[in-house]
Amino acid sequence: MARVFNFAAGPSALPESVLAECAAEMLDYHGCGMSVLEMSHRSSSYQQIFDDAEATLRRIANIPSNYRVLFLQGGATLQFAGIPMNLMVSGRAGYLVTGNFAAKAEREARKYGEVDVLATSEYTGFDRIPEVAGVGELAEATGYDYVYICQNNTIFGTQYHELPQTGEVPLVSDVSSCFLAEPIDVTRYGLVYAGAQKNAGCAGVTVVIVRDDLIENGPALPCCPTYLDYREQAEKGSMLNTPNTFGIYLCGKVYHWIEAAGGLAAMERMNREKSGLIYDYLDQSHLFHGHAQPASRSIANVTFRTGDERLDAAFVDGATQRGLVGVKGHRLVGGMRASVYNAVPIEGVRALVDYMAEFEDEHTK
Amino acid sequence: MARVFNFAAGPSALPESVLAECAAEMLDYHGCGMSVLEMSHRSSSYQQIFDDAEATLRRIANIPSNYRVLFLQGGATLQFAGIPMNLMVSGRAGYLVTGNFAAKAEREARKYGEVDVLATSEYTGFDRIPEVAGVGELAEATGYDYVYICQNNTIFGTQYHELPQTGEVPLVSDVSSCFLAEPIDVTRYGLVYAGAQKNAGCAGVTVVIVRDDLIENGPALPCCPTYLDYREQAEKGSMLNTPNTFGIYLCGKVYHWIEAAGGLAAMERMNREKSGLIYDYLDQSHLFHGHAQPASRSIANVTFRTGDERLDAAFVDGATQRGLVGVKGHRLVGGMRASVYNAVPIEGVRALVDYMAEFEDEHTK
Repeated sequence: MARVFNFAAGPSALPESVLAECAAEMLDYHGCGMSVLEMSHRSSSYQQIFDDAEATLRRIANIPSNYRVLFLQGGATLQFAGIPMNLMVSGRAGYLVTGNFAAKAEREARKYGEVDVLATSEYTGFDRIPEVAGVGELAEATGYDYVYICQNNTIFGTQYHELPQTGEVPLVSDVSSCFLAEPIDVTRYGLVYAGAQKNAGCAGVTVVIVRDDLIENGPALPCCPTYLDYREQAEKGSMLNTPNTFGIYLCGKVYHWIEAAGGLAAMERMNREKSGLIYDYLDQSHLFHGHAQPASRSIANVTFRTGDERLDAAFVDGATQRGLVGVKGHRLVGGMRASVYNAVPIEGVRALVDYMAEFEDEHTK
Repeated sequence: MARVFNFAAGPSALPESVLAECAAEMLDYHGCGMSVLEMSHRSSSYQQIFDDAEATLRRIANIPSNYRVLFLQGGATLQFAGIPMNLMVSGRAGYLVTGNFAAKAEREARKYGEVDVLATSEYTGFDRIPEVAGVGELAEATGYDYVYICQNNTIFGTQYHELPQTGEVPLVSDVSSCFLAEPIDVTRYGLVYAGAQKNAGCAGVTVVIVRDDLIENGPALPCCPTYLDYREQAEKGSMLNTPNTFGIYLCGKVYHWIEAAGGLAAMERMNREKSGLIYDYLDQSHLFHGHAQPASRSIANVTFRTGDERLDAAFVDGATQRGLVGVKGHRLVGGMRASVYNAVPIEGVRALVDYMAEFEDEHTK
């Protein structure tokens, strides 16, 4: 079968050229006589692959030298614990709850210290990013160890378009579904992290970027597993133990693909164009309605529905038959979701919008 | 270049047919129009891959139905913390220290409870498995939550050929470097786990097999990250969050390869033959000496040296030039190490032994 257009929320579409390179190198990487999958993580061949991945990420995301880059395992979920265990020095943090993953992070943090929910959009079905003015003053006055946000809410299709000002208090952000989708100013964060399986590689790799002064004293809590000790992992170059060697290799290829395509500014242009095509259609549609409030719309995940579950199901089925896969919405919000990550080509988005028009035409006669 | 013979300790050699299948399926898995790397972990296509991997593992390792199989991330190192956090109900465990990884596990466990070292072979350079008679009586009398061993010591080349009797106290075993190298009686353990990057797949996947009664009440310690909550992971079928989807897919292929090759009994025969070729050579050599005491020799990792560091280095260089790579010993023990995991063909081992003979001839004239 021809390759489909894959709108899955993650794991998700990868650049075809990256996959082709992986296939070509699978039995013999660059003439070394073995697969990357077979390489010792302590070998110089593998260290080159690793160093190149980090260096490329540092270039495209413009990561300052006082930030450490860690390539870890366990997904964002493991970092929900790792962050408080490392950073909760005074035992108190503020969380902004804008969706399922922010809520999970907040609940997990309660195991390790006192947590204040500074704002939530739960009562409007997580359809927006709440007002965050004043968070910085509050955070400084309370003496939080950090303020936590989930920057793009994959399930609900919302995104912070402006970061909360947190003053001297470090901002910690889960950028899993918007990482490398647009330029990032790393200096705005104390710690920023992402599961790689959206725009930035594959499942099994979690990138943590952390300002070095925040980890110089080691974990705040003695119960922190050594694996999650950010200082230790930074000192060991993410090789405290065997990392996900193949995953990091693939991430490096994705970083190179982004760089060759014009970097994060080019990614943002494309992603705005792609998501814009769907939002424009939604804004004039009489059948489909967007879930996210316009000011909070994600450029990565576009959520919408007809309001009729049977019609939604029919739309998803029809899309799948046309090779437009992965558009079923998350059970928490229902309807449809089109994730238009970096590797989803605009042709796929055009085909989806064409199908939306055709479907609307057919069902509103 | 032709494929080399890879004696690395992990990540390590994989069956060429497994790699060839991964390459062939890289852009389009079984006509579904996408790579496994791009599949949603919640899709039915991926669930089939996952279920097949688990079912195949259960068949080849004869895992009883009252044991849960978890596919996690973070390597053995993360489980060094996960095990006490889940199992230390009464707060006390006994550890047998037979090498670097057992010692690391023991140190990590001290963060979470009281730990007794029941035996160690540290004072003889970890060249043997210590005497363990009486451990069961002691364990029961003390009321340990578990007794912990590292069953095959990758760095030192030793292996338990008989498991300690621990009576009613669960035996917990890190089998990372001997998992699927020989038949396993899972009923002997409360929990048995392995990083997959030796005989059982690739880096980034850790398989935990745990008796269900040990996890039915959830983690012993409230500080346990949800990611490491074995009950929660078991209930969610290892999909509490996005697992290492590609890694598990590859593991499944390795399990099928083992099954097609005759299962674990066949693996053991081959591994005994391969390691035996090197041990036989060592036993008559005047230049090379084995590190492990004969009764404790590993069938997976064969450690040896000349006693002269320059000669060792010359041997490693010469081996590499002949396409026999990864034979440098770990820095903690020096010399050489040949890991003869399942996927290392006997031709490679014969070539290594031929080279040992040639090298000895040349350097003992």
